[in-house]
Amino acid sequence: MDHAHLKQKALSYVEEAAAFIKDAMKNTYGIDTKANKDDLVTDVDRNVEKLFIDKVAKDFPDHRLMGEEGSYKDIDDLSGYVWILDPIDGTVNFVHMGTYFAISLGIFKDGEPVIGIILDVMNDEWFVSEAGKGAELNGKRLPQLPDVALDEALVSFNTGWVLKDTRLQEIVKKARGTRSYGSAALEMAYVASGRIDAYISMNLAPWDVAGGWAVLKEVGGVATTYEGNELTFLQKDTLFAASPSIYKQINAHLK
Amino acid sequence: MDHAHLKQKALSYVEEAAAFIKDAMKNTYGIDTKANKDDLVTDVDRNVEKLFIDKVAKDFPDHRLMGEEGSYKDIDDLSGYVWILDPIDGTVNFVHMGTYFAISLGIFKDGEPVIGIILDVMNDEWFVSEAGKGAELNGKRLPQLPDVALDEALVSFNTGWVLKDTRLQEIVKKARGTRSYGSAALEMAYVASGRIDAYISMNLAPWDVAGGWAVLKEVGGVATTYEGNELTFLQKDTLFAASPSIYKQINAHLK
Repeated sequence: MDHAHLKQKALSYVEEAAAFIKDAMKNTYGIDTKANKDDLVTDVDRNVEKLFIDKVAKDFPDHRLMGEEGSYKDIDDLSGYVWILDPIDGTVNFVHMGTYFAISLGIFKDGEPVIGIILDVMNDEWFVSEAGKGAELNGKRLPQLPDVALDEALVSFNTGWVLKDTRLQEIVKKARGTRSYGSAALEMAYVASGRIDAYISMNLAPWDVAGGWAVLKEVGGVATTYEGNELTFLQKDTLFAASPSIYKQINAHLK
Repeated sequence: MDHAHLKQKALSYVEEAAAFIKDAMKNTYGIDTKANKDDLVTDVDRNVEKLFIDKVAKDFPDHRLMGEEGSYKDIDDLSGYVWILDPIDGTVNFVHMGTYFAISLGIFKDGEPVIGIILDVMNDEWFVSEAGKGAELNGKRLPQLPDVALDEALVSFNTGWVLKDTRLQEIVKKARGTRSYGSAALEMAYVASGRIDAYISMNLAPWDVAGGWAVLKEVGGVATTYEGNELTFLQKDTLFAASPSIYKQINAHLK
């Protein structure tokens, strides 16, 4: 399998999906009720997943697709090529803000990421990776993640987690600052591009993290469960994604 | 004073400042050390403030300018026209992320906002208001803020505040979600555009909030200190900015 070709095809599907999402938003955001927007997100999720199912079936008939809207149900291993898709990562942002959401796609081969694409649809930022070839933001190569001290680091997680795991309070006090952008895919892409240094979440599905891991891995980043176990990409799990130096420093506080 | 003319002039200064900032970033971000970026932010802060000082002195000689880089020191009242400027709101984001920072400008007359401009420099989003004429995002009119229930609301504040004021923990549990974007000006603009519903901070200067208040006021939003007192725009203070319905609901929990 030529991965450059696979990447070009995947990029073209994501581009088509983004155009579809923007069109759907234009038509629905005029009717400005929450119920309408909730319907919109369900609709867009389904249609984008369908778009990918059809294209992958046609262009790569031996590949499988795992997505939020049902097509994950038959997948309990990652043998061969598996496309792991989140049509809209950051659903609440999509409904509530109309921005700061992403299309997230990770294409895995035998359990290892080969292609990662995260598109910030409204801000037109493309985070793209190919295994062994590095990662790019809008065509510009992303450097390997440098060493950062925790008191110079930005750490991203939902404020609610601080109440559930008080060890995170220590991180809040020691880090330069905390952020929360509301999209796991974008926050992993931000770790990969050095904008933030760590992202922690207590409850994510494989499609929330597959694209992010593909991109992050190419710049030397680390991603495990919060407890430090390997991600399986087959079940909901916690996540701790970071630059290698910050991963170590935060981990020391979590022990 | 013709406020439409004042707004056009102010917009042109902000546009020039944004171009200057982007140029300065291009030249410096190649030299990728934190010290360099810290120098850059100081440099850009000073130069953008100087740009405004010169232009305001020339075009509006009887107006005063209050800015972070020293020109606030002589200002202890808001009589007449006062330009309240933050050349880079979200300094940590500027240095660390290279995005999610804003130019924030509020022009006040006798203590009341007449013009507000918040520009998300890298994402090219312009939040602009004129007293009595409403507010716009990229030329599109922002509607008056609708009623929202707290369990449907997004609330933005720094995670650290939850550790300092445990009443906020109740808000974290009751709200639909929390966010933290790292720029007070942008977060006030997001409240004004309905993307989030409240923004709380424990320590902000007048230039962090003046532009945001000018925009927010035009869509029926509320901004006071965290304790519910009127903002003076003459000293550092806390901030509680929200849509009117969420302001009431959160306030009930803070009592």
